[in-house]
Amino acid sequence: MDLPRFPAREAAAVSDRFVPGCVCMRVLVTGATGFVGRHVLKPLAERGFEVHTVSRRAASSEESVAHQADVLDASAVRRVIEHVRPTHLLHLAWFAEPKKFWNARENLQWVAASMEVLRAFADAGGKRFVGVGSCAEYEWRDKVYVEDRTALAPATLYGASKLAVCDVLRAFAPTVGLSFAWARLFFIYGPHEPPVKLVASVINSLLAGDTARITSGEQIRDFLHVSDAADALAAIVGSNFEGAVNIGSGNGIAVRDLVRLIGDLTGASDRVAIGAVTSAAPEAPSVVADTRRLREKLRFEPRLDLREGLEQTIAWWRANGR
Amino acid sequence: MDLPRFPAREAAAVSDRFVPGCVCMRVLVTGATGFVGRHVLKPLAERGFEVHTVSRRAASSEESVAHQADVLDASAVRRVIEHVRPTHLLHLAWFAEPKKFWNARENLQWVAASMEVLRAFADAGGKRFVGVGSCAEYEWRDKVYVEDRTALAPATLYGASKLAVCDVLRAFAPTVGLSFAWARLFFIYGPHEPPVKLVASVINSLLAGDTARITSGEQIRDFLHVSDAADALAAIVGSNFEGAVNIGSGNGIAVRDLVRLIGDLTGASDRVAIGAVTSAAPEAPSVVADTRRLREKLRFEPRLDLREGLEQTIAWWRANGR
Repeated sequence: MDLPRFPAREAAAVSDRFVPGCVCMRVLVTGATGFVGRHVLKPLAERGFEVHTVSRRAASSEESVAHQADVLDASAVRRVIEHVRPTHLLHLAWFAEPKKFWNARENLQWVAASMEVLRAFADAGGKRFVGVGSCAEYEWRDKVYVEDRTALAPATLYGASKLAVCDVLRAFAPTVGLSFAWARLFFIYGPHEPPVKLVASVINSLLAGDTARITSGEQIRDFLHVSDAADALAAIVGSNFEGAVNIGSGNGIAVRDLVRLIGDLTGASDRVAIGAVTSAAPEAPSVVADTRRLREKLRFEPRLDLREGLEQTIAWWRANGR
Repeated sequence: MDLPRFPAREAAAVSDRFVPGCVCMRVLVTGATGFVGRHVLKPLAERGFEVHTVSRRAASSEESVAHQADVLDASAVRRVIEHVRPTHLLHLAWFAEPKKFWNARENLQWVAASMEVLRAFADAGGKRFVGVGSCAEYEWRDKVYVEDRTALAPATLYGASKLAVCDVLRAFAPTVGLSFAWARLFFIYGPHEPPVKLVASVINSLLAGDTARITSGEQIRDFLHVSDAADALAAIVGSNFEGAVNIGSGNGIAVRDLVRLIGDLTGASDRVAIGAVTSAAPEAPSVVADTRRLREKLRFEPRLDLREGLEQTIAWWRANGR
């Protein structure tokens, strides 16, 4: 894809924080205040993007210019897009309240909002759109999930809603000459993870001197540190790769082994109670990303292995505990 | 499904045209001023529904109460739904400008609008939602298309957008206890068809004394008269069938044979020019509905065969010509 060159006056119209006349790519990020979103601004800036964000709570950072708008408000977000005129858009915003998001009606609002963001971006001359989906789009039956090969048969409203946006994007992009990719996130952990999620809650229980009580935890999952996930997203935005791509480590681990590892790393192995809780519903045996596309097409490798990522995360929670 | 019984005061609040205190089902129809929509009000009323419509141009009929709102305006349509409090909703509205609709960006607006209609209906205590899709949701490769068996791989933005709504509806309905069906229309013709569409344009050309010029027309298609399609939709709304169901005749005919038949029925066989036009793009060889579900689950049979339907349509165009 050709990188557009912006005349200086146009760049100046939206920001005076970047060198006028530079060859620049301008990305607008939705969901930038979320768990993954807050980690993605720096790697985007490091890749040469002029980074803009849109969210309800506008909060400019060193790396980005913030614009305030509720992404659920179609006309407000359209105004921001028309003002910023981004060349790239990374659409991370979605309803993400832990546990509830799987089957919340808010999923329908976010399908609708995604349509409006996509349309406004195309109307404003956008060049490349990267949407963010989930491993929940796949049928959870195989061991390792391969893009465009593993059956797409979501078991949840969240998965179906993400897949619906992906399907429309895939059909829409060629009709308006848009470059697009769709990133499917697997299990992401790290600093700022909502405290009720597995990794954060186990770490916090153990750091607080409590016992971490989990199910038998035999299910295999693919965990990736949020800084690597954010780096991968930035790499996808900055590439010309088209289609769906998994973002995971490519390595599966049984949840109980993950929890034991956290026990070791916090020096609290004696307070890990595997099987102390009964599963509410049967768990899919294995949800692991095939990462060949990520490695070969995007030339992306995670920087942190699971042990390093957990050590970093435990250190962060020690410093920023609940 | 249990039929809800409405207290008289509630029925009176939205309409004084129906007997208060009756056991009634109240259906709201979107797209009621469209080609198919205008034919569906009578069969719905005949099945005992209190029929309401919502459209930009409000036009009450003998069979229905009209409410004015643009279905693309989420808050306006929500107000109508909260006011009418329908038990059933038949969602026909979509961007339908001939030829353009296949890849128009308006498809994204209608995906968004459909999410809002669906959510507002569920929020207002609706019981059964019937969405209207298209044979364009299928991969056009087989001869006969079977619901939930033929591959769903749309080649157009329109097909992808309809399928996206279907997929979200299918996942959403069980989370809120909604009964739902998804009707896939094949090739519908009859009175009020947009004049540029195949059947209407051939009839009008021949009635005007012109030559009907078409491609070689070898592709097989499934044509159904709009009054039968509307009847089928009313039957689906009034049933408790769940899932996708094709609406077609179940019979394929080569387009050139259809055009020849119109030539015979208008006494203008000599002005039918098969092969006079070159196809712009290769046509899928066959698009024919498997109608077993429609016949067996809905107990629906079309009343008009193709010859009868065309005769009726030709008579209508003679009386109501362009």
